[in-house]
Amino acid sequence: MGKIRIWAVIFLVIAIIIGIALVPQLNKYANPGAILPSENPFMYEKSIDIMVMLLIGFGFLMVFVKKYGYSSVTATFLLVALSLPLYMLMRPYLWGSAADLSITSISMLLFAEFAAASLLIAIGGPLGRVNTNQYLTIGLLFTPLYALNEWILLSGSVIPPGAFLDTAGSISIHAFGAYFALGMIIMLTTKKEREVKIEASKGSNQFMLLGSAALWIFWPSFCSALSPVDQIPLVATNTILALCGATLATYALSTLIRGKMEVCDIANASLAGGVAIGASVANVSPGWAMLIGTVAGAISVIGYNYIQPTLQKLTGGVDTCGVHNLHGMPGVFGGLVAMVFVAFPLWQLTGIAITVILAVTTGVVVGFVVSKLGRKQQPYDDGDEFFTSEVNEEPTK
Amino acid sequence: MGKIRIWAVIFLVIAIIIGIALVPQLNKYANPGAILPSENPFMYEKSIDIMVMLLIGFGFLMVFVKKYGYSSVTATFLLVALSLPLYMLMRPYLWGSAADLSITSISMLLFAEFAAASLLIAIGGPLGRVNTNQYLTIGLLFTPLYALNEWILLSGSVIPPGAFLDTAGSISIHAFGAYFALGMIIMLTTKKEREVKIEASKGSNQFMLLGSAALWIFWPSFCSALSPVDQIPLVATNTILALCGATLATYALSTLIRGKMEVCDIANASLAGGVAIGASVANVSPGWAMLIGTVAGAISVIGYNYIQPTLQKLTGGVDTCGVHNLHGMPGVFGGLVAMVFVAFPLWQLTGIAITVILAVTTGVVVGFVVSKLGRKQQPYDDGDEFFTSEVNEEPTK
Amino acid sequence: MGKIRIWAVIFLVIAIIIGIALVPQLNKYANPGAILPSENPFMYEKSIDIMVMLLIGFGFLMVFVKKYGYSSVTATFLLVALSLPLYMLMRPYLWGSAADLSITSISMLLFAEFAAASLLIAIGGPLGRVNTNQYLTIGLLFTPLYALNEWILLSGSVIPPGAFLDTAGSISIHAFGAYFALGMIIMLTTKKEREVKIEASKGSNQFMLLGSAALWIFWPSFCSALSPVDQIPLVATNTILALCGATLATYALSTLIRGKMEVCDIANASLAGGVAIGASVANVSPGWAMLIGTVAGAISVIGYNYIQPTLQKLTGGVDTCGVHNLHGMPGVFGGLVAMVFVAFPLWQLTGIAITVILAVTTGVVVGFVVSKLGRKQQPYDDGDEFFTSEVNEEPTK
Repeated sequence: MGKIRIWAVIFLVIAIIIGIALVPQLNKYANPGAILPSENPFMYEKSIDIMVMLLIGFGFLMVFVKKYGYSSVTATFLLVALSLPLYMLMRPYLWGSAADLSITSISMLLFAEFAAASLLIAIGGPLGRVNTNQYLTIGLLFTPLYALNEWILLSGSVIPPGAFLDTAGSISIHAFGAYFALGMIIMLTTKKEREVKIEASKGSNQFMLLGSAALWIFWPSFCSALSPVDQIPLVATNTILALCGATLATYALSTLIRGKMEVCDIANASLAGGVAIGASVANVSPGWAMLIGTVAGAISVIGYNYIQPTLQKLTGGVDTCGVHNLHGMPGVFGGLVAMVFVAFPLWQLTGIAITVILAVTTGVVVGFVVSKLGRKQQPYDDGDEFFTSEVNEEPTK
Repeated sequence: MGKIRIWAVIFLVIAIIIGIALVPQLNKYANPGAILPSENPFMYEKSIDIMVMLLIGFGFLMVFVKKYGYSSVTATFLLVALSLPLYMLMRPYLWGSAADLSITSISMLLFAEFAAASLLIAIGGPLGRVNTNQYLTIGLLFTPLYALNEWILLSGSVIPPGAFLDTAGSISIHAFGAYFALGMIIMLTTKKEREVKIEASKGSNQFMLLGSAALWIFWPSFCSALSPVDQIPLVATNTILALCGATLATYALSTLIRGKMEVCDIANASLAGGVAIGASVANVSPGWAMLIGTVAGAISVIGYNYIQPTLQKLTGGVDTCGVHNLHGMPGVFGGLVAMVFVAFPLWQLTGIAITVILAVTTGVVVGFVVSKLGRKQQPYDDGDEFFTSEVNEEPTK
Repeated sequence: MGKIRIWAVIFLVIAIIIGIALVPQLNKYANPGAILPSENPFMYEKSIDIMVMLLIGFGFLMVFVKKYGYSSVTATFLLVALSLPLYMLMRPYLWGSAADLSITSISMLLFAEFAAASLLIAIGGPLGRVNTNQYLTIGLLFTPLYALNEWILLSGSVIPPGAFLDTAGSISIHAFGAYFALGMIIMLTTKKEREVKIEASKGSNQFMLLGSAALWIFWPSFCSALSPVDQIPLVATNTILALCGATLATYALSTLIRGKMEVCDIANASLAGGVAIGASVANVSPGWAMLIGTVAGAISVIGYNYIQPTLQKLTGGVDTCGVHNLHGMPGVFGGLVAMVFVAFPLWQLTGIAITVILAVTTGVVVGFVVSKLGRKQQPYDDGDEFFTSEVNEEPTK
């Protein structure tokens, strides 16, 4: 039995263990049918909207790597399938009485989806250079670390309640995932891989645009997922205007800098408005939201064009999807903007610093561990792990 | 006027007849504006979510057949367009006072969508070997047979009320469609067709993954469509955890059995958790849901790898989409699991047996009738019925 | 700095100006958190559903042009990003106290989305023959003209309240956009462009079918967006049955006329039922809705086959997406049907006439202005404005 099969058995066993471990959970924490005072029945559809963002949005945004489409979508499926139950299992132990969420509350599902989103952001960094079992190992290690950071920022046990503003996770979700990626890729890029060109095709880029559209569309549900009903219109409008600003800025900056548009800029940087508005989405007015989004879009395009190449030279790590440009810098920018709205801006700054440091550090460690589990034979290629004979047939037709 | 045009006229006339027949329906049964005691206003969005499953989910899951993408999606559109109004027209006559649903209630729409889902499952069997008019003829004959089986299982007139548990249609929707397909394909596979390889391409498989993602995402709405509001969190969590279990099991089993992943396994078997949890989704706890899903995913992969080839040799029928592996066996498994939760398990078993027998038998008859309406000239090829010149251009570009 | 860069700067400045102009808006008009008496909290999800129609529906329906997929989707992103905030900015000034919508009400968002939908319909006419900055210029000029026509029809200041029935915009959204396109293309088609064949490919058509499915699925949310909760089931059922009728009629007519199906007919004309039912969707019964849809589907296929070539010869304008067949004639047909339900049918007729005349006239003027801003070097080709090296790589792989 080869290594690939042994890992398959290991993760099958892990799935069963999580299932069994969850069985008594219901009796302990659940109060099925009860809706928390903070909940409303409109949250259900938002949990579905966010699932679109996870599986179609993040999943297909990563399909741009030409020969790696099966792996990108499959890794997305698997990481969602692993991290949702894992988060649900661990959260009650970690948060304790700070937030006694039932496993069958929609709030629990939403928090688990946020963890999955952050994880999918993180794997965008080493995408194409690790095997399926390595993605799953990253998922296993990332989920508790994400939950730890979330607990530090939001539980009120470390940072005082209300001193840190991050309504829709600019810091806790986006920046954490992106800086975790930055840490990992230092350990997960070989010299040879640094020289491989990551190829796209017309078809793979078209799927990327589809993923991007899915994220754009459902972002208001991401931002308003936990909002009380009467705040939804403000949050939705702000999110949409931030995305509008970022989209227009992306067209302008991509054209200005490069002389032509780069379709990857369009698909990615247009979303930076959603990332950046996350922290203060319930506190700003729509005009400001549009301006924040415009700046975020500009930052993101500048990131793709100037900062990413520099950073790659500096650290040696290849950031396949450019998650630092889309989720890293715009996330931090959004967190900094929110300093205006908090009573003690220093706590806001502290939260951002903790997140970035914790993410990079643990990312390096996890990257190191995962790098010991083997190397992908052909980077950015489905062929190692999938039957792809049909692919080779195509040109002869 | 060729045969193809005559059929076009026939189905245009049928569309008009259904429209006219529906006109008085409103006066007779409708009470517009009234929401039934069993309904809630959240059901509307679920009816839309299920439409995503029908047109994008089932539709694009079937696009994997390389040269048959136009036909797969068009057949999906047409069968939905035929079966929704047909079911709405017939249901009041069939169920009578047992469920006096208004044609303008969302419940009626949801039940009609379930019928369409089962029909789309059924045509996944002979997919690519019949013409458009034959798909539509199958739709015409299938819809009343589906409604009959549904009435036997759920109306309380045959099986006592409460003695049969099938909350989200593991048996009535999935198993019925799949075993109907199994019956049909015995009659709808020629010797020549048995030898034709069903070809996929990178592009067609990528669309299949998109269809799969759409089904995964919206499955909780399928399962909770008829749930009272306070039960939605439990049902949604259970559905998602069942899908998580199946997805992880699919990766593990596909790798274990084949040594590499098969992208068709990933796209299909990952969904088996949703199929199997359907019957007991409102009765189990999340841990159990994950375990049921894990088993269902494993059953499905085993089906694709071992049972489908055997069954094909035995019956001579080619199951193009492998609906027996995704909807047949996991559906029956889910129905059997639900025996634990019913007062008289024998009634549950009886309902399953009736469904399988009725489906296979009527499937054979319908397959026979449809086989008499002609043969597709080129199996698995759009060219018979669509203008496809642009397809041939591609390689020269 | 080339022309392309100057335009980029201009639109960046416009984005910033709109953002700044919106800042005081909130203080002036907003009453955040207040839900208007005409609103309900279910409207939020519909605003998201309509975003799917805009970005994935209209966006990918236009991807059928083989080498123009990046531009089609990018233009969609940009026009949505421009028209939403622009409409929100202008509406309070235009409508005045007639509808004092807060910028943070979901109603405002929905009305802005309707404007964006009409704009996307309009650019379907000259699609592929203008540059990105020209699309954006069209957006700048179209949005106030659309809002003016909407105000004439629906504000009650010109046509008496209740004398014009157009619940879901057959006239105000669909016909206006389509006839505006008709006006524009007279000015935006060169002699050379009239002779260029608009090429599709299997892949691009498959994405078109995806866009079509997205529109089909979410159309009930478009039609019921502003409906009171108890009217939603009727409106949803009517919309769906109208689409069912159109889909069946499209198959029949396309086959009858051409002898085989044309995949563009299927993707487009199937939606004509949704266009036509818009005006009277809250007033007819489901049977009638299906019949109206059937007629609309037939009209649309006839349009694609006979009327479009004639019109093109007559006016010299190329209607790339055939928006006159999908949105123009079915829209007017829907508006005429609604004459049955209004107290003074002449007012209904007047509203239709005003819309068509205003749209064509202003379309010609805007087309003329835009034609002065330059010409696309390669019609129907991404290469002018996007880096597309990866596209050329494909055949060698």
